[in-house]
Amino acid sequence: MRFKSIIAYDGTAYEGWQSQPSGPTVQDKVEEAINKITQEEVRIHGSGRTDAGVHARGQVMHFDSDTVIPLEQLHKGINAMLPADIRLSTLEDADPEFHARFDAIGKEYRYHIWNGPIVPPFISHYRTQVRMPLDLDQMKAAAELFVGEHDFASFSANANREVEDTVRRIDRLQIFNQEEDVAIVIAGNGFLYKMVRTIAGFLLLVGQGKITPDSFQELLEARQRNKDIPTAPAQGLFLWQVYY
Amino acid sequence: MRFKSIIAYDGTAYEGWQSQPSGPTVQDKVEEAINKITQEEVRIHGSGRTDAGVHARGQVMHFDSDTVIPLEQLHKGINAMLPADIRLSTLEDADPEFHARFDAIGKEYRYHIWNGPIVPPFISHYRTQVRMPLDLDQMKAAAELFVGEHDFASFSANANREVEDTVRRIDRLQIFNQEEDVAIVIAGNGFLYKMVRTIAGFLLLVGQGKITPDSFQELLEARQRNKDIPTAPAQGLFLWQVYY
Repeated sequence: MRFKSIIAYDGTAYEGWQSQPSGPTVQDKVEEAINKITQEEVRIHGSGRTDAGVHARGQVMHFDSDTVIPLEQLHKGINAMLPADIRLSTLEDADPEFHARFDAIGKEYRYHIWNGPIVPPFISHYRTQVRMPLDLDQMKAAAELFVGEHDFASFSANANREVEDTVRRIDRLQIFNQEEDVAIVIAGNGFLYKMVRTIAGFLLLVGQGKITPDSFQELLEARQRNKDIPTAPAQGLFLWQVYY
Repeated sequence: MRFKSIIAYDGTAYEGWQSQPSGPTVQDKVEEAINKITQEEVRIHGSGRTDAGVHARGQVMHFDSDTVIPLEQLHKGINAMLPADIRLSTLEDADPEFHARFDAIGKEYRYHIWNGPIVPPFISHYRTQVRMPLDLDQMKAAAELFVGEHDFASFSANANREVEDTVRRIDRLQIFNQEEDVAIVIAGNGFLYKMVRTIAGFLLLVGQGKITPDSFQELLEARQRNKDIPTAPAQGLFLWQVYY
């Protein structure tokens, strides 16, 4: 039987989503929890990877299991086995053909910035601090340019990856703030490796007046990563939602 | 020169506010940071203690220093020396007579409950989980009874403390919620040891239908701690504000 789950996690303590030798990952923890409850050797499939230190409000995964444990009890049991920084928000029966990665038609990410001198202790793991006051109007002007279908080769760290098609469609790129708390909301049909953090890095340079919004076009056309555009730190990034 | 500061901290990693042999405290960390910057042996004075695991949005302290470092630089320097889970939200020059503890005329605390099966990972250190749906109307009815001046001996863990006067005035006790997120807001002229957590423990029993609001009067009149009323866990509690 196939199961679908929406997962939330605080990525601070993990080497990202996907299993790897360098340290504990979210995937490892979730598989361990499922296996303890089902007494099986379950392999989970996420909608995509998240990097070390990146958080998720709405990662999605599927897995197959022959367990006869009723759904609600299974959900409760897995969460009881997980550390408090990972939670299955939902667990449901899925179509046997459902695939968390291949069926995704889009994703929404949010990048959170604390634009002030003092980050409140309760959210320090979830914000990137920028002390210099950001020009949000300039950031909004730059953000509009991203919307639509573009070749985003310049806005990713694709060097060692075998992605041939670097064209992606951005449906939404908006900047919101509540006083010092600034959020970049970005949604589209797919994202290249480190693309969201590179776009955030670009927008932060614009907000600090180090480049102008119209440098977007030139960067885009170069079709290669420009080292002057920093990759914004992992801790401000949330995978917010996956669309199917 | 006397300084006044409002401090925010995540109490998860600390043995409470006040210095003690059993482990690191918030006071230790703040004094270390001040001493590194001023090269003095400064002793700070808080508005009162907070227990191990209790958080503060608005703890207040004062200290004396002969430093000639300009105020803004001093503030920035101390914060730079502190771990990210402690921050001086403000630092200002104070009247030489100002005393963080003796001048306080009241305090506000907030007790946060997650009333549902799954605590979001990002706030798991800041909520006490209660799975059974709480009857908030009953809790509100009970809360109203607390307002006013009462002898709160029954609602504190005073056994080994030499507090003779156990009369306190509660000015405000309200219950708020946003879906599963429930907050108890309590303000008054002073609080006995573990009084807020005992009141929260009482209100949670009422919310779960284990006792009725009108048991308040009988409990109060007993003037001694009733072991059937649990002390609610530390992690849901925030010292929210100190009034002067």
